[in-house]
Amino acid sequence: MVVPEPGLPAAVTIYEVGPRDGLQNEQGIIPTATKAAFVRRLLAAGLPIVEATSFVHPRWVPQLADAADLMTALRAELGDAAAELPVLVPNERGLDRAVELGLRHVAVFASATDTFAERNLNRTVDSQFEMFAPTVDRALAQGMDVRGYVSMCFGDPWEGAVPIDQVVAVGTRLLDLGVGQLSLGDTIGVATAGHVRALVAAFAAAGIGPERLALHFHDTYGQALTNVHAGLQAGVTTYDASAGGLGGCPYAHSATGNLATEDLVWFLTGLGIEHGVDLTAVAATSRWMAAELGRPSPSAVVRALTPPTE
Amino acid sequence: MVVPEPGLPAAVTIYEVGPRDGLQNEQGIIPTATKAAFVRRLLAAGLPIVEATSFVHPRWVPQLADAADLMTALRAELGDAAAELPVLVPNERGLDRAVELGLRHVAVFASATDTFAERNLNRTVDSQFEMFAPTVDRALAQGMDVRGYVSMCFGDPWEGAVPIDQVVAVGTRLLDLGVGQLSLGDTIGVATAGHVRALVAAFAAAGIGPERLALHFHDTYGQALTNVHAGLQAGVTTYDASAGGLGGCPYAHSATGNLATEDLVWFLTGLGIEHGVDLTAVAATSRWMAAELGRPSPSAVVRALTPPTE
Repeated sequence: MVVPEPGLPAAVTIYEVGPRDGLQNEQGIIPTATKAAFVRRLLAAGLPIVEATSFVHPRWVPQLADAADLMTALRAELGDAAAELPVLVPNERGLDRAVELGLRHVAVFASATDTFAERNLNRTVDSQFEMFAPTVDRALAQGMDVRGYVSMCFGDPWEGAVPIDQVVAVGTRLLDLGVGQLSLGDTIGVATAGHVRALVAAFAAAGIGPERLALHFHDTYGQALTNVHAGLQAGVTTYDASAGGLGGCPYAHSATGNLATEDLVWFLTGLGIEHGVDLTAVAATSRWMAAELGRPSPSAVVRALTPPTE
Repeated sequence: MVVPEPGLPAAVTIYEVGPRDGLQNEQGIIPTATKAAFVRRLLAAGLPIVEATSFVHPRWVPQLADAADLMTALRAELGDAAAELPVLVPNERGLDRAVELGLRHVAVFASATDTFAERNLNRTVDSQFEMFAPTVDRALAQGMDVRGYVSMCFGDPWEGAVPIDQVVAVGTRLLDLGVGQLSLGDTIGVATAGHVRALVAAFAAAGIGPERLALHFHDTYGQALTNVHAGLQAGVTTYDASAGGLGGCPYAHSATGNLATEDLVWFLTGLGIEHGVDLTAVAATSRWMAAELGRPSPSAVVRALTPPTE
C-alpha cells in the first residue's frame, strides 16, 4: 500500500553500482559478455544511472581488468548511450582510458580516514588530493562530469568512529577541486540514523546542501534502509544501490554488502516516491546474476519475490 | 558512534518473541531443555520481556506441544520469575493451562482481516471476539495482564492492502475487552515507513496513544528497521523482535522472518536509546541456537559479529 510520509522528496535518483561495486570483489571469472548483459538489463529495468566498471589497475581489482573491453562492447551494443555510463577512475592513468573511450562521466574514490587511504590508495588523506587534483582538472577540461566518492564516512575498521568534521573537510576539498556530486559511503555498514542526519546537517552548515550529496550505504548491520530514511528526511535525493545486494567491503567479512536496489525500490514505492525502476525487471536481473554467480541474492526483496520452486 | 536523533524516545522496551514466534514454525524437534536454555540465556542477556511459548492446540503448532513442560522446567529453574514470562493463549482452553501454572501474563492473537481470521482461527474478524471476550475476561479476573496481537495490519497475502480503519477497529475492540497493550503486526513484512506512521496516527485520532501500542515487524522485504524508525518518530516505545531473526510467517515463503533483536539493538544503541540488552550476549545466544537448528542466523548483526572462522 502506498502511504506517503509528509516532507520527503517527491522523487529519488537511484545510482546503480552493481556492475562496479557489486562485482569488484568477486573471485570467479565473470565473462565480459555477462557483465555487458548485466548493465543492459539494469538500464532496461529503468535504472537512470549505472556505474559500469572501474579503470583501476588490474593488479588491485582483477575482476575489472576487462574494463576497456566491457565499455567497447557496451558502445557496440548501446551506441552513444554507453558514453553516459559512469566509470571509476582512481587516477590519471584511469582517466586516460576513459578519455580514449569517449566517456563523459567519471568518479574518483577518496577516503575519509588515513588508515583506509593508506591501505586502499597508499596515500594519506592529505596526499590523496595530489592524485585527484590533476585527474579532476583534466576530466573537467574534457567536459566530463566528475563524482567524488568518500569512503569510511561513518566508521573505519581500524580507526573506529570517524569524526564528522573530518568527513566534511574531505568532501569540501573534493568539491573545491570541481567534483559535481559527493557520494558519502558507509563502507563497513555501521552507521545509524542519527549519525546520517548529523552528517548531512554538518555539510549543510558548511554551505553544502543535500542536492550536492548522494548516500552510499552497506547493509552489513542491517541499517542501510533506515539510513536512507534518515537521508530522505534530511533532503538527500540520490542513493547508491546494488542490484540484488551484490558486493561488500573486503574489510568486512560478513556476506552482506551494498544496499540492495530492490529493497530500496520497495521502500520508495511504499512511500510513493518516484524512482522510475521496474521492480520485477531488476529482481529478475538479480536472480539471473545470482545464478551466474552460483549463490542466492542477499536481497530480502529478491528472495521474497522468488517463487519457492525456483 | 552514538549520535542521537532529536525527538526520539529516550528508552525502548524490546519484547522478545524468539522462543514463541521464532520457533513455532520450526519443523525439527527442539528438546524442551534447549528451549528452556534459550529463554534463560535471553533473560540473562538483559531482555526485559521474553514470550516463552503458546498454549495452542498441538495439532496446529506441534513445535510448541511441550508448552506446559517448558513452563514447568522454567519454574524449576527460575522460580517465581518464570510466572512473569508471557505466553500466548488462543482461547479459554489455553488460558486454563496458563492459570494452572500460575502464570501472570498472557496474550491473545487476533487478525485484522477476515481471510487470515478464517485460515488461522476458523473465525471471521467479528466472530473472533466471541472467543477472545471470555478469555480476556477470565484472565483479568485472575489478575493477569493481557496483550493483544493484531496480525496482518499492513497487508494480507490474500486480501492485499488492509485498510487502516479496519485495523484501528480491531485494535479498539481488543482494548475495549480489557487488553493492556496492542501489538500491531506486519505479518508478511510488506509495510513501509509512511504506512506505519499513518497507522499510529490513526490510533491516536481514535484516542489510543502510542504508549498503548507495540509494533511487530517482519523483515521479509528488508523494511523492518525503517518501520521501527517510523514508529519511534511516532512515539511508540515497545518493539517486538526475535533473537537472531528466527521465525517467519508460514504464509510468506521467504526465509526472512521476524526483525532480529540484534539488528534492533544495534540501531537503538547507535541512536543512544536505552534498551538494557547486552548485544554480545544475545548474539552469542543466537549463534548457539543457529547451531542447534543447523543453519546460520538470518540476522545481519549476528553474521557481522561472527568471526570468519566460526
